[in-house]
Amino acid sequence: MNARLSLDPGRALAEQLFASLREATGDGVGITRDSYGAGESAALDIVEAAARGHGLQIERDAAGNLVVTLPGTEPELPFLACGSHLDSVPRGGNYDGAAGVVAGLMALVRLRDEGIAPRRTIRLYGLRGEESAAFGRAYIGSSALFGLLTPDDLAQPHAATGRSLRECMRDVGAAVEGIEVGEVLLRPARVHAWLELHIEQGPVLIARDLPVAAVTGIRGNVRHRVVTCIGEPGHSGAVPRWLRHDAVFAVAELLTRLDHHWQSMLAQGQDLVVTAGVMGTDPAEHAIARIPGTARFSFEARSQSRETLDGFHALFVDECRQIEATRGVRFEMDRRLDTAPAVMDRAWVERLRTLIRGLGVADEPMPSGAGHDAAVFANAGVPSAMIFVRNRNGSHNPREAMEMDDFCTGAEVLRLALLEGSA
Amino acid sequence: MNARLSLDPGRALAEQLFASLREATGDGVGITRDSYGAGESAALDIVEAAARGHGLQIERDAAGNLVVTLPGTEPELPFLACGSHLDSVPRGGNYDGAAGVVAGLMALVRLRDEGIAPRRTIRLYGLRGEESAAFGRAYIGSSALFGLLTPDDLAQPHAATGRSLRECMRDVGAAVEGIEVGEVLLRPARVHAWLELHIEQGPVLIARDLPVAAVTGIRGNVRHRVVTCIGEPGHSGAVPRWLRHDAVFAVAELLTRLDHHWQSMLAQGQDLVVTAGVMGTDPAEHAIARIPGTARFSFEARSQSRETLDGFHALFVDECRQIEATRGVRFEMDRRLDTAPAVMDRAWVERLRTLIRGLGVADEPMPSGAGHDAAVFANAGVPSAMIFVRNRNGSHNPREAMEMDDFCTGAEVLRLALLEGSA
Repeated sequence: MNARLSLDPGRALAEQLFASLREATGDGVGITRDSYGAGESAALDIVEAAARGHGLQIERDAAGNLVVTLPGTEPELPFLACGSHLDSVPRGGNYDGAAGVVAGLMALVRLRDEGIAPRRTIRLYGLRGEESAAFGRAYIGSSALFGLLTPDDLAQPHAATGRSLRECMRDVGAAVEGIEVGEVLLRPARVHAWLELHIEQGPVLIARDLPVAAVTGIRGNVRHRVVTCIGEPGHSGAVPRWLRHDAVFAVAELLTRLDHHWQSMLAQGQDLVVTAGVMGTDPAEHAIARIPGTARFSFEARSQSRETLDGFHALFVDECRQIEATRGVRFEMDRRLDTAPAVMDRAWVERLRTLIRGLGVADEPMPSGAGHDAAVFANAGVPSAMIFVRNRNGSHNPREAMEMDDFCTGAEVLRLALLEGSA
Repeated sequence: MNARLSLDPGRALAEQLFASLREATGDGVGITRDSYGAGESAALDIVEAAARGHGLQIERDAAGNLVVTLPGTEPELPFLACGSHLDSVPRGGNYDGAAGVVAGLMALVRLRDEGIAPRRTIRLYGLRGEESAAFGRAYIGSSALFGLLTPDDLAQPHAATGRSLRECMRDVGAAVEGIEVGEVLLRPARVHAWLELHIEQGPVLIARDLPVAAVTGIRGNVRHRVVTCIGEPGHSGAVPRWLRHDAVFAVAELLTRLDHHWQSMLAQGQDLVVTAGVMGTDPAEHAIARIPGTARFSFEARSQSRETLDGFHALFVDECRQIEATRGVRFEMDRRLDTAPAVMDRAWVERLRTLIRGLGVADEPMPSGAGHDAAVFANAGVPSAMIFVRNRNGSHNPREAMEMDDFCTGAEVLRLALLEGSA
């Protein structure tokens, strides 16, 4: 297959686009395409020029996103959409987001070059503002389409420049007056489906030695930013074990018990990851020779299943209560924060799996642990699906590494899906 | 017994001394008697004046310590020594150290008032520089007696004032020229025994509802200031459990395993306390949504038994290796630091236990978790023993709380022991 793919003119187009993007938005360390900023706009311009050069229709929508259109023979039908985002984190990699846009363009160019007239119109989105943490929230470009931004969102200043999101959106021609009153710029019913190719941001496809996979869903999460375990400080030599209320040993036991529950739930086939990313004793009072009276940690569980999230959170609270009783400590939790999982469309997932097998690739569907624009489309009611492409070293860093062979396999799955879905 | 003790003129002397010490060295929050400084000297002066007022011989030894003498009828015999330290931590309590000196003075005054002429000379030491962390080491006043200080020790600047220990010792008349070349100011063979009363710095006597206890030994310890667990950072949503190398879960499992070993060893009758007083993820890279790639913690085990310390340290290293193998993490330990346990003299411990029982008090000997001058005497070869007095809220803080009834019980044990040991 590699030999065949390397002869593909689509591959040449992709290589040229990735090179142009890298050149235009490299920052000396990695890639910076600031959301609703100059780097992102440069990326949209590059893709737009290529699309125009291949005779495709181009426009910018009311949220400033790039839209490339291959008209269908029955334009009144809901259109089929694909794409991803063109912005990046500061000093990020070249493929996170851009791969999905380039793959979509490859498909549209080939369909047009081959003179195929689809029944449904196909539209490629080069979305803005997915990696928009500098404005305090993600998925701005897709959220704006569905009327999900608030005046408060638009008033947020950029963390580095201080300029408001409203100013930055207006600069690129977005219709901020409508956006800030929640106007729906794209009716979900107008979209037949959303298909997004994206690099995998974890190590699963590397570990399983697979080039691509269909995505079954996007994990939601339940979090506590800070859980405080309050015990009793004391002299590390002078207090025997039976009189201790050691906050660190209590947290260690809690996490070890949660780890056992986690393993049991995985063995039962549930989808779950658990993380205490921040943990520590109090620098204002900790010492080698002092029994720690306080320890703090963050709690996060992620799953594609809301039931699993609720069940694990209940176990977490229950284990805290048990350890409080046996160790004479107290756990204080801040507010529980929930992000709902996003379910991918079952029929589209099955279609992608069939296409993957058709290319002779083992089919092992997997969840997405990170969020994506696809979750916004799915939660707006658009049947959505994703294709992950193998990628080394995670994302959001300059070391991300996607092989072009893997990318072309994923792009081929996307092309075949668009062909099938628009026929 | 309380009624009897409250009639004791010794109790009145003690109350007056504690009041004078509190008044002279109070700092508005607690008590500050800076080692080889003004507060400590004021305390020595107060005790010296009281001893002189009761017709006892007084002197300052070559290390600047206060020495109060009740001459024996056979002065060529090794003398019996008692006492404790008169300095305190900044903003400490009134009893940590001073209680042992006041108890010794009560005993000597009563022996003299009753006209008892002991066979052996009895000497009370009001030691300097036990809480001398500001000079980078503890037990300066007792260590100087046995030639244990180095030129390096004497060159250490005070953490707050910057004045060297040499200057501060010279100010109070210490023979720094001899001390810094390790001259032995007090030959251990000249001392028949060292008896030290001290407040308990832990909660055991409160919890066991006992006024006093004989001390069986002073725990030594084995430490690593920093143990680093190195795993692999990653996206908290995108990496499944089987591909994780989570440093926090690894440390949690390690501490939980050590806790199980600790419980087993206690069940076998071994003496052990274990503390990870400082622990945390790396603030430069931790985040709620990031699998922690690094976690650091301090390791400390304390025991009266060197074999227990070595055995537990071996278990610690072994568990690190096992968790490295199962979790794909690495534990890096800094240098192992050892402080030897100090064994109390078996015959003297038995004598104290018998005297305690003789006062109608339940006899439950216990280890000392904190270090004391008694450890310096013991390790220099002087048969040593200690009496702990019940005390609430730990030590090294203004909230330490010793009841005078408990103190008088302990002082009575000390008096009887001096009487017996000098006869």
